[in-house]
Amino acid sequence: MPLDHQGPLGRLRRGHEELVLRLLRTHGPLSRGELGRLSGLSRTTLYDIVAALADGGAVVGTTPVPAERRRGRPVETLTLHPDAGQAIGIDFARRAVHVAAVNVAHEVIGSSSQAHAADLGWEDRVDLAERLVAGLAGGTLRLGALSGIGVGVVGPVDDVPPDDTPLARPALADLPLLLRKRFGVPVLLDNNTRLAALAEATWGAAAGVQDVLYLRLSYGVGGGLVVGGALHRGAHGLSGEFGHITAEPEGRRCSCGKDGCLETVASIGAVLDAYGTAADLPAFLAALPHDPAAARVLDTVGTRIGTVLAAVCNAIGPDVTVLGGELAAAGPSLFHPVERALLAHLMPISRSRADLRAAALGEAGGALGAIALVLHESPLLARYPAPDSLE
Amino acid sequence: MPLDHQGPLGRLRRGHEELVLRLLRTHGPLSRGELGRLSGLSRTTLYDIVAALADGGAVVGTTPVPAERRRGRPVETLTLHPDAGQAIGIDFARRAVHVAAVNVAHEVIGSSSQAHAADLGWEDRVDLAERLVAGLAGGTLRLGALSGIGVGVVGPVDDVPPDDTPLARPALADLPLLLRKRFGVPVLLDNNTRLAALAEATWGAAAGVQDVLYLRLSYGVGGGLVVGGALHRGAHGLSGEFGHITAEPEGRRCSCGKDGCLETVASIGAVLDAYGTAADLPAFLAALPHDPAAARVLDTVGTRIGTVLAAVCNAIGPDVTVLGGELAAAGPSLFHPVERALLAHLMPISRSRADLRAAALGEAGGALGAIALVLHESPLLARYPAPDSLE
Repeated sequence: MPLDHQGPLGRLRRGHEELVLRLLRTHGPLSRGELGRLSGLSRTTLYDIVAALADGGAVVGTTPVPAERRRGRPVETLTLHPDAGQAIGIDFARRAVHVAAVNVAHEVIGSSSQAHAADLGWEDRVDLAERLVAGLAGGTLRLGALSGIGVGVVGPVDDVPPDDTPLARPALADLPLLLRKRFGVPVLLDNNTRLAALAEATWGAAAGVQDVLYLRLSYGVGGGLVVGGALHRGAHGLSGEFGHITAEPEGRRCSCGKDGCLETVASIGAVLDAYGTAADLPAFLAALPHDPAAARVLDTVGTRIGTVLAAVCNAIGPDVTVLGGELAAAGPSLFHPVERALLAHLMPISRSRADLRAAALGEAGGALGAIALVLHESPLLARYPAPDSLE
Repeated sequence: MPLDHQGPLGRLRRGHEELVLRLLRTHGPLSRGELGRLSGLSRTTLYDIVAALADGGAVVGTTPVPAERRRGRPVETLTLHPDAGQAIGIDFARRAVHVAAVNVAHEVIGSSSQAHAADLGWEDRVDLAERLVAGLAGGTLRLGALSGIGVGVVGPVDDVPPDDTPLARPALADLPLLLRKRFGVPVLLDNNTRLAALAEATWGAAAGVQDVLYLRLSYGVGGGLVVGGALHRGAHGLSGEFGHITAEPEGRRCSCGKDGCLETVASIGAVLDAYGTAADLPAFLAALPHDPAAARVLDTVGTRIGTVLAAVCNAIGPDVTVLGGELAAAGPSLFHPVERALLAHLMPISRSRADLRAAALGEAGGALGAIALVLHESPLLARYPAPDSLE
């Protein structure tokens, strides 16, 4: 795929390409003449665009065999190639690589995961990702129509432009370039917790919801905000840091250096500490139904979580709040106190609209969110309205 | 102006119109041939688009008088009409109407205000707005190229589609339709405090900044969020309610029905109450430099404000935080304690990036924000990238 889609002319061109793809998605097979009328593009422009899409494997031309002899050439119709990949998502988690892909109709073609040692190098991780991608859709996936790769990584990602700007962390500095060299398309990168938020808002517990607050309760406490259907990054890539909102002003010192952060109360480690026995999370969850002490711990923790969530909800007014991460498996013992405190501290006018849900996506969330990142945020795709807003 | 710009085909057409306007803005006068090459539009499409823009007064054709006789017709060039209005903003405040307008080059043509009795009816307020608009730019403003009117109103505005959907409050129910009848273009409506936030992010203290948190300290405490350069509405139009985040869990009952809201601590009324004498705001501000009791009140209030702001900042990571409203005139006596508490409760990694500023726009903020609303949020204008992102 040519790299000339950067820059203003390239963006305009990609906008035209996306318009043609969208028309083929919504109308089905079309002749060149019909495409010209529907798109308003000139014959010359359209010829170029269709040629590029056909070269990339996104579009195929079919000429029907005439049932009877007619005058003139039969009219060629253009259709989308069913195996053309539109976007790939890769989640480089701590000890595993997860990949997923969608076709040009934005249907998930497949997803795939493989665990690896925590110290595996980036070259090897990218090799692994490439092999997993190659195996998707039984190896029939055509990459020529890819518009981009979304990538999730662990930890904060500074607010960098796509592609080749170095990241703050040296280990990650070469990753976008490495991927771009392998796949030849733009790379969008973000924190995988935030991508899980976007995934929940796209394919998961809050599918199709515009404004979503996602809180992940794991060994760390983090989250993400989806605003108007798109991932919110914030200045310097530091949004969604719900784990570092002060929950107990006189509380414990947090790893971030501040005192009393929500993470010092609501991380898995903090919950196990408060429970006091040498349990691990599975043992704690198993104890919940019959040990009132375990339920009391979650009651206190849930109250802190709900209070912090209420402050954020009053500020941003999400449609849906999603709780994910391993601790969310505690179920009602956690969700009830969270909801009680949330309602107590929400503006009364907002209380009837509060909508707290458990996350629906498992370990594929990061990779699915990375795909959503490409589909939602790529300027090429955002240029024209999505098909469902056009119907 | 025809109303057929609603619906998918109309949106596509308006997208083409905006593309042509943008090319004329960035390139200056162009011939039809040049426009065709730059836009990629077919001759037929372009002819229609230019005719509509010329009819509306947005575009004028000029044929240069040849200095010497040449063969063939001189080539007509197309330019933007300098007096063509692109958008109007109207702020229906409690006791005044403020209006402002920008031309197709997005320059503010002028703004105008007139006070009125608080009980003036909506028909009369709209009459007043119409007269103020007519007087802008010395009466030379041409409305034919208007792409929309932005409107600010007092109080919550539910999340309604533009134009003719009735609002929750009967008094406002007919306003969008009323304005649309007078001006013949789409109407976008929002809360005027949130519009002031958008104005600060567009023309004010945070001009050009993508993510802005705006807190307004007045007789009420409210605010707005600008996210990715656009106003954030939230579910049911209830975002930016910073005044109803719990600041003192055991605090006073708020007008909203909840206890200890920031508004019960940081509104002008609460500040005057805490000061204890029967002062009004000007007297309180005048006392500040020489009365330590007044400064102590603001120290306590500022600490509460900064703590609440820090929670919101950790969640959304704004580039800039703007403090506005009449109380912001207190200056350093307020800003210092706000900043101290903000820094204490921000994630340490975000502290060096905290950027607290005083609001820069006065009473025209709502009307200017309403214009920005039209320019930023209208789907017609968002379709193609803004000129500066194209350079």
